[in-house]
Amino acid sequence: MSFEPVAGFRFGAVSAGIRKDGRIDVALAVADQPAVVAGMFTRNVVRAAPVDIAMQRVRSGRARAVVANSGCANACTGEAGWKATLDTTRAVAESIGASEDEVLPASTGVIGAVLPAHRIIERVPELSARLSPTGYLDFAQAICTTDRWPKLAQRKLGAGATLLGIGKGAGMIHPDVGPPHATMLVFLFTDAVIDAGEASDALAASCDVTFNACSVDGDTSTNDTVLLLSSGASQRRVSRDELSAGLTEVCGELARSMVADGEGSTHVAEIRVRGLATRDGARAVARTVATSMLVKTALFGKDANWGRLLAAAGRAGVPFDPREAQILVGGIPIVRDGAPVGAEAELKANEVLARDTYVIELVLGGGPGDFAYLTSDLGHGYVDVNAGYRS
Amino acid sequence: MSFEPVAGFRFGAVSAGIRKDGRIDVALAVADQPAVVAGMFTRNVVRAAPVDIAMQRVRSGRARAVVANSGCANACTGEAGWKATLDTTRAVAESIGASEDEVLPASTGVIGAVLPAHRIIERVPELSARLSPTGYLDFAQAICTTDRWPKLAQRKLGAGATLLGIGKGAGMIHPDVGPPHATMLVFLFTDAVIDAGEASDALAASCDVTFNACSVDGDTSTNDTVLLLSSGASQRRVSRDELSAGLTEVCGELARSMVADGEGSTHVAEIRVRGLATRDGARAVARTVATSMLVKTALFGKDANWGRLLAAAGRAGVPFDPREAQILVGGIPIVRDGAPVGAEAELKANEVLARDTYVIELVLGGGPGDFAYLTSDLGHGYVDVNAGYRS
Repeated sequence: MSFEPVAGFRFGAVSAGIRKDGRIDVALAVADQPAVVAGMFTRNVVRAAPVDIAMQRVRSGRARAVVANSGCANACTGEAGWKATLDTTRAVAESIGASEDEVLPASTGVIGAVLPAHRIIERVPELSARLSPTGYLDFAQAICTTDRWPKLAQRKLGAGATLLGIGKGAGMIHPDVGPPHATMLVFLFTDAVIDAGEASDALAASCDVTFNACSVDGDTSTNDTVLLLSSGASQRRVSRDELSAGLTEVCGELARSMVADGEGSTHVAEIRVRGLATRDGARAVARTVATSMLVKTALFGKDANWGRLLAAAGRAGVPFDPREAQILVGGIPIVRDGAPVGAEAELKANEVLARDTYVIELVLGGGPGDFAYLTSDLGHGYVDVNAGYRS
Repeated sequence: MSFEPVAGFRFGAVSAGIRKDGRIDVALAVADQPAVVAGMFTRNVVRAAPVDIAMQRVRSGRARAVVANSGCANACTGEAGWKATLDTTRAVAESIGASEDEVLPASTGVIGAVLPAHRIIERVPELSARLSPTGYLDFAQAICTTDRWPKLAQRKLGAGATLLGIGKGAGMIHPDVGPPHATMLVFLFTDAVIDAGEASDALAASCDVTFNACSVDGDTSTNDTVLLLSSGASQRRVSRDELSAGLTEVCGELARSMVADGEGSTHVAEIRVRGLATRDGARAVARTVATSMLVKTALFGKDANWGRLLAAAGRAGVPFDPREAQILVGGIPIVRDGAPVGAEAELKANEVLARDTYVIELVLGGGPGDFAYLTSDLGHGYVDVNAGYRS
């Protein structure tokens, strides 16, 4: 993978000793001039201090910088946590000559520990000195927690403008982000000319079919944050459609990367539900199938266990006639008219399930409602990562 | 454990070769005279043939027999499955001198295979010959699938009447049964004098706080069935309160036994949520915490990971102020006013989590809404059982 700079933005990262392993853990992105900004935040009622502060600040539609750390979520930390985030963003603001309200914080890591602001503040001069147009790889690395790889995606927006997305996420991944509302962190940078309202609408629509349509473990985080910053430095105005298409592609690629990197994940399955009366119904069924522990363990076992798929679909609270149900794995029909096609078809389907990634389609009627959801499998790796995460 | 006969009922079981391992797999309970009956069935829209047939028949409020098998759920089997269940119940009816509509079927096992009715029908004469007032242990054994132990519970209903409950269930356990709506199978037998309406109301209320308040894997089955049969043979009329109390105790004991026997389960946790505005809100939060994969893996790891508890509570869609949240593990406060009490408290809580069973309380405000949910932990055993279930 190679990525290009985004005109008007510089990036950098340092180690401030927040993570125990000494890896880089504080990332900074700075816009040379105030950037247009839009944000989406977790809808969990338990929200970390940096989420509440970024939610407030993003309302202005303008920002100069994003400061993000791994190793500490600064969630459930009360007044002390709130102050730690404010102190950090103030130090960054002073260092880059911005106002405090123009610096957006984001944190990921263990819940319940107060962000050690003084460690970050001590390193802000070095962090500022390291900023460079190509520093995005360091930025992406610094926000990783249990991630096995950094997550970046890039697309051209029409001629002359570019969109770069940087994300992290492997556990507590079942984003449910809304306009001014994962620990998924995603930062999107573009040099296209867009206005804040347009950015916000396009971002909400894109999140809805990408991050809000993927799950590792069904657990929505206290810290999920998606920020889009536009410098306008390319001086190219892009259409709403171009922006939406680019955002959906970049966000889709990052969402897929998070699920592939899902804690203990060995497969990425796309659950496509079709034929229901409404899209909301299809979303509910796709989400129920994608988060079913029995479905996810069957995927780990590479077993085309259509009974579990159909049983999960049936408990989503959405009406359909099971006698009309069709199920296809990698295009191979294994259920037709609600009954199994046969052992031969299932053996072929099991071969599909041995692949890294595949599509499972549930056709549950003749209606127009469809929705696709990305999910990972549930195996021993997930248990190993999560039964001992804090120790 | 020792159990007493219930006047007016006889029980028996045989092996009909439905299970591959040759264990007893067909169970029969017969009332000497037509019994009062009430039933609760899965609300999954994908329902097995025996569920649909039992739902129809239970409406009369009268039944003579229950015939249940393990090894085959007879779900998603279309017309052939429907006919197989009808043929089976007809053979039983002829054998005991009842009408076909008085025989209630129930099945559990693999989804998608048609019940081999001929094997059961061949063994019906032997099954009828084996019926005895003390045959309930055989009955309980015959309906087990991945269960490690048979599940029975008994209570006196006032003076002179008794209630015996027989259940099975270890996986696909997240019952959601309603009045004419896992695979949990539960059969309740009493010799008390009760009427059908009373039985139905009391059963619905008891299921709501027992089976519908427990989860192993969050997956609601196509076959969940709860049947209450009353012979009246004790000639003791019990009050509605006596019946409800007895049912709730017996159903509660069976629900706890199912969760303890949950596939791969090593602990039973009772998640008590208090202080919300409504009971429905408390139920939603308790269910979300009890089915969270991150919570369940933390319980497997014996880790008092309150951040996961609070994050799960926060994504249930129920408003509360996290700054007021208290969390107690086995009575030990680990979160007060939304912040951690400290490392010492958490170490003590970790000791509680090493026990077989314990209570976790989340106090989320000062409101009257409370609800308790039983859940198991998620460890390697669960993955082992479910990644290879069909093979």
